[in-house]
Amino acid sequence: MLKPLFKKTPFIFICTMMLVISAKAQEKNSSVAIEAKIEKIMATLTLEEKVAMCHAQSKFSSPGLEKLGIPELWMSDGPHGVRGEINWDDWGYAKWTNDSITAFPALTCLASTFNPKLAKDYGISIGEEARYRKKDVLLGPGVNMYRTPLNGRNFEYMGEDPFLASKMVVPYIQGVQQNGVAACVKHYALNNQELWRGHINVEVSDRALHEIYLPAFKAAVEEGKVWSLMGAYNQFRGQHTTHNQILMNSILKKDWAFDGVVISDWGSAHDTKQAALNGLDIEMGTGTDGLTTSTKNAYDSYYLANPFLKMLKSGEIKEEVLNDKVRRILLLMFRTNMNPNRPLGRINNQEHLDVARKIAGEGIVLLKNEASFFPINPNKKMTIAVIGENATKSMTIGGGSSELKALHEISPLEGLKERYQNATLIHAMGYASGPSAYDRVIPSKLDANQLKKEAIEAASKADLVLFFGGLNKNHLQDCEGVDRKEYQLPFGQDELLTELLKVNSNIGVVLVSGNAVEMPWITNVKAVMQTWYLGSEAGNAIADVISGDVNPSGKLPFSFPKKLSDNAAHSFGELSYPGDKVTQYYKEDILVGYRWHDTKKIKPLFAFGEGMSYTTFELSKLDSDKKVYSKDEAITISGTVSNKGNLDGAEVVQVYIGKLNSKVSRAEKELKSFQKVPVKKGENGTFKISIDTNSLSFYDETISNWNLEKGDYMIYIGNSSSNISKKIKISIQ
Amino acid sequence: MLKPLFKKTPFIFICTMMLVISAKAQEKNSSVAIEAKIEKIMATLTLEEKVAMCHAQSKFSSPGLEKLGIPELWMSDGPHGVRGEINWDDWGYAKWTNDSITAFPALTCLASTFNPKLAKDYGISIGEEARYRKKDVLLGPGVNMYRTPLNGRNFEYMGEDPFLASKMVVPYIQGVQQNGVAACVKHYALNNQELWRGHINVEVSDRALHEIYLPAFKAAVEEGKVWSLMGAYNQFRGQHTTHNQILMNSILKKDWAFDGVVISDWGSAHDTKQAALNGLDIEMGTGTDGLTTSTKNAYDSYYLANPFLKMLKSGEIKEEVLNDKVRRILLLMFRTNMNPNRPLGRINNQEHLDVARKIAGEGIVLLKNEASFFPINPNKKMTIAVIGENATKSMTIGGGSSELKALHEISPLEGLKERYQNATLIHAMGYASGPSAYDRVIPSKLDANQLKKEAIEAASKADLVLFFGGLNKNHLQDCEGVDRKEYQLPFGQDELLTELLKVNSNIGVVLVSGNAVEMPWITNVKAVMQTWYLGSEAGNAIADVISGDVNPSGKLPFSFPKKLSDNAAHSFGELSYPGDKVTQYYKEDILVGYRWHDTKKIKPLFAFGEGMSYTTFELSKLDSDKKVYSKDEAITISGTVSNKGNLDGAEVVQVYIGKLNSKVSRAEKELKSFQKVPVKKGENGTFKISIDTNSLSFYDETISNWNLEKGDYMIYIGNSSSNISKKIKISIQ
Repeated sequence: MLKPLFKKTPFIFICTMMLVISAKAQEKNSSVAIEAKIEKIMATLTLEEKVAMCHAQSKFSSPGLEKLGIPELWMSDGPHGVRGEINWDDWGYAKWTNDSITAFPALTCLASTFNPKLAKDYGISIGEEARYRKKDVLLGPGVNMYRTPLNGRNFEYMGEDPFLASKMVVPYIQGVQQNGVAACVKHYALNNQELWRGHINVEVSDRALHEIYLPAFKAAVEEGKVWSLMGAYNQFRGQHTTHNQILMNSILKKDWAFDGVVISDWGSAHDTKQAALNGLDIEMGTGTDGLTTSTKNAYDSYYLANPFLKMLKSGEIKEEVLNDKVRRILLLMFRTNMNPNRPLGRINNQEHLDVARKIAGEGIVLLKNEASFFPINPNKKMTIAVIGENATKSMTIGGGSSELKALHEISPLEGLKERYQNATLIHAMGYASGPSAYDRVIPSKLDANQLKKEAIEAASKADLVLFFGGLNKNHLQDCEGVDRKEYQLPFGQDELLTELLKVNSNIGVVLVSGNAVEMPWITNVKAVMQTWYLGSEAGNAIADVISGDVNPSGKLPFSFPKKLSDNAAHSFGELSYPGDKVTQYYKEDILVGYRWHDTKKIKPLFAFGEGMSYTTFELSKLDSDKKVYSKDEAITISGTVSNKGNLDGAEVVQVYIGKLNSKVSRAEKELKSFQKVPVKKGENGTFKISIDTNSLSFYDETISNWNLEKGDYMIYIGNSSSNISKKIKISIQ
Repeated sequence: MLKPLFKKTPFIFICTMMLVISAKAQEKNSSVAIEAKIEKIMATLTLEEKVAMCHAQSKFSSPGLEKLGIPELWMSDGPHGVRGEINWDDWGYAKWTNDSITAFPALTCLASTFNPKLAKDYGISIGEEARYRKKDVLLGPGVNMYRTPLNGRNFEYMGEDPFLASKMVVPYIQGVQQNGVAACVKHYALNNQELWRGHINVEVSDRALHEIYLPAFKAAVEEGKVWSLMGAYNQFRGQHTTHNQILMNSILKKDWAFDGVVISDWGSAHDTKQAALNGLDIEMGTGTDGLTTSTKNAYDSYYLANPFLKMLKSGEIKEEVLNDKVRRILLLMFRTNMNPNRPLGRINNQEHLDVARKIAGEGIVLLKNEASFFPINPNKKMTIAVIGENATKSMTIGGGSSELKALHEISPLEGLKERYQNATLIHAMGYASGPSAYDRVIPSKLDANQLKKEAIEAASKADLVLFFGGLNKNHLQDCEGVDRKEYQLPFGQDELLTELLKVNSNIGVVLVSGNAVEMPWITNVKAVMQTWYLGSEAGNAIADVISGDVNPSGKLPFSFPKKLSDNAAHSFGELSYPGDKVTQYYKEDILVGYRWHDTKKIKPLFAFGEGMSYTTFELSKLDSDKKVYSKDEAITISGTVSNKGNLDGAEVVQVYIGKLNSKVSRAEKELKSFQKVPVKKGENGTFKISIDTNSLSFYDETISNWNLEKGDYMIYIGNSSSNISKKIKISIQ
């Protein structure tokens, strides 16, 4: 009885009935009115009161002004769900029982959907959960660029392409913020590896910075109107990014006119004067673990606390510097906890699970599917061997700050058992990932040979084998803090697969990971499905796709190189990755991901934008509206997508453009637009895509600005960066 | 710079600027609209979801409905300030640093002001603090009647007179609730001793129940419109009060039409069927200490959890019983955490401290003042011996659930040091109260003889002695859980005073307590001042009165008998107090407090309503508008208050009325009205008091209703129950 009603009316019913959107309210909250209120408050604050607002009072909160009734600011780790309650002043969990939430798919999965509408749904849903949990700032989304498959935190980001990440981050932010909860886009910037993240100094060209590493942040600020942004741990050109003159002052606050709050990553501030002058507004997490006392002393020693106050009093730093920070913080508060119109939020409702499952289903990428291995008919009587630790391992636990306390998490095995009730499912763990604090099973007690033996036995008895492998959220895997040590699959999975193939060649591999992996067995297995970390509904979503209830339409948001040295960052030796502990040089410059593979003609194992369907699509009638364009004009691309198969599905049309004979070195092609086109079986769909010619500009270091080169360009239209159906030559005059 | 601005504009400026009081908002929150919303929600809830809302999820919260965005209900101990954050599932403090607050004077002090306007200010202020601390329900005020001076919790209540308590509780509640925070009037009912409170069965006549023990609760409900009420620990007529058919169903919810939520005291529920059927709505604190687990199992075993669900499912309890509870809870939520118009609150602001200090100053009662011992001129050079542990002991720490984490607490000694900068202050502890967990000094290490010696030495050197004694918040003193064991001053204070008087007869006693005490030395000391527990501003308020900056105007809210056996409850042996562990009989019936002293002609040491001023007041021209009244008419009493002294001050005019030749046994007189009249020195003030003749009714057990006897009544007008300036005989026809 509950579900049908709420499927239709939840937000209107419960949340918006609390909203008071009268003309008067809107007027009262106009930006002019808020500005006036802020100035009124500013006029009453003491230096001490203002400084107090610029740093933490606990692990995840910063003070308001209790005497004036300005609420505290409560933050929570994201970006895949609202983290469990953390203790006041140490990293332990508070052991509350009201902080179980919906775990949404990892952002790599969201990116793989190539569906901005789902990013909006994701944002709305997670924002509602943050609001219900009384959080004012959700620490996400992350849009650092995928530079190397070893980066332990890639699963929290949106892939290797700045355009894709930009298109996905904007609706996510808008969705979160419509709840009166600030998104906090992170980690700004160049935090593209976890190894030595606290100190490594990144040296990168202005061009790569502006063309590759900043566009998603820029979109978050200029289009998403994000209310807060998190500084990163690493350095850029010798200065920590959290208080970096170029990144924060020149680019973020001046060029992009960011009016929100810069929050440090936890412990990423290192210098009072730089923090004060280079744009940090709220300092969080500077080494106060375990220092809880009845006084607030531990936090008084923050860079932006007493040392800041001292410099302000001595005149070494002008009060206007402080005032700018406090004005930003107050504006953030008027947008969040002082906004009387914000809804109440909700958690663990069916709609959020539905959103999580939909995104998971649309994000799963089918990479290989020999002889239509997938989908597997659930009505058929057969024996399926489900092999691999990842068939049962929790992927919401671990991984670092994105760890979640999911109200429930359907494992792949559980999802399959529910779906394949006509089949006999045999499960064998096959391998063990070694000790990890939170594992359901303690693998250290398991004998590797015994596990392998059991798996081989299971495979030999089965009609088909589903191998659930990949990475996990353990230390040195897809996990914050350090990077992976190797590109290949860990825990002996490659060897295990080889053994399994000896007894059963009918094997489909389901990879659970947030990163690309090496696949030496690729030609021998029947099928490969990349499923990411999918959250609460993981097993259901995987069963949806495996069974064919959902026709896969996900596309890879980053390239899978055949071997690690094929990746751009790994092509220039250690100084490029991981650096010499002090500095690293992004020697591949703008040629990140598919830009490298395309330009250098290094064929990847699976390309950016690649992903199969259970049906067959054909692109036709592909054309541009004109062949010659001038500046500020839009290029319109149109065409037809025909579904030639027997299943409804959706295809992602991708438009790449490359400059021919550029005066600067360029990538062969860059993604300039995409559109997910749903087409019913046997039918034709059409699409029309519009591209601003200015987006063809390159960042010209000689003028420190974008430069739209005149001349010839090639438009590439396809369903993957490696599968181009049509090339169209145009020119800009 | 801050103070002047905010003295004038705080609420308007910060809080109400958040308020959106548009016509639309008001309409949306009309009771009809809310009722409709509640029914809409009700229609969607499952049995399990509804049951979940009827019991705790942690020490101080009960669940909302997370899927629908109905927020949790967060409660906090009161009533003198918002208690520090408690752990999720045990009684330990959470060690947060944002939970220091303003400690307001104890409710005995508020009652002593005889100033309902201050009760409103108290309510507004504490409500603002609760709101800022994100509490939806403040567990207070307490209006149990002062029956015996041994009751450990009297300091949390408002004295022995039901009329006084009624007049003070109503504005307190209104003040709290204008913040969108529910007051929770407690402990309903007859929880008039702490000893054996968990099980003692109170037997009391219907008449005493309705005339003495219930009126303040009735006023809280009918006039204060209180949104929640707390059941008590004890039993009444063989049934626990928290789920008592008579108290909850017949009286509270039927006769008084209470539309709020009944919350159990922590652990006061004892039976599922009774809890379900006899009006308990939310069960809290049923023995879950230390049972925190990742599941909510511990709370599932509550009487109103799984056992309740089982009876509902079996049909043993009808669903309508549950629905009534949930409707009440939802209404409470619409009044609090789902009210978008509620302000944001604030804590630790100057205005709250000012309110605390004002109440403290007006509540201090001057009981004896030979040769104008007080006020003591602060400009005079002299030596003052400040003797006694209570000159420095924290009185916000300890006492049970009303314990507070005050941002600051000015001790009497600190207050005097600040004021008497021209005098030499010598401090000697004099006595030690014995070990207590939270003492600033560890008294067990102190030698009693040494302390006494130091005190005598200090007294012998001084021009005058201020003896700070009384009780404290330790176990067996003014403290929740058990009662005092003796009426006399503890810790050898009487002996110490005798010794001190030998070396210095110029002694003023400042009593810090929430209860009456025996004063064997009363004729030998120069002055006695009763100062209660005064909270954050204790020392400042005491210095205000001692120095004469504030002219005392407080009146005793309960009688101080000369000896314990003079108290009514103690006049009938152990079955009357404390009972035989199973049952107790309120044998004094309606003759509680001054009603007993007056009627039985047992002169108290200090009488109810008594309290001196530094100036002299004279009441004159006292008269009633008529001499013969009919039912439903108002008796108007008017008169003049003349300030004959040299200081501005305020006098509390008290109007008592007694029935002459009643057909039932009656108290000689009962307080029917009072008015605090401020009069400048040498001036005259007038007052006009209106009394509804119906308030002269007695509760007639033969008709189970109030009965206004016709015939003669005597009106007594005075400035104390023991100092009547004029008697006027009237009759009701």
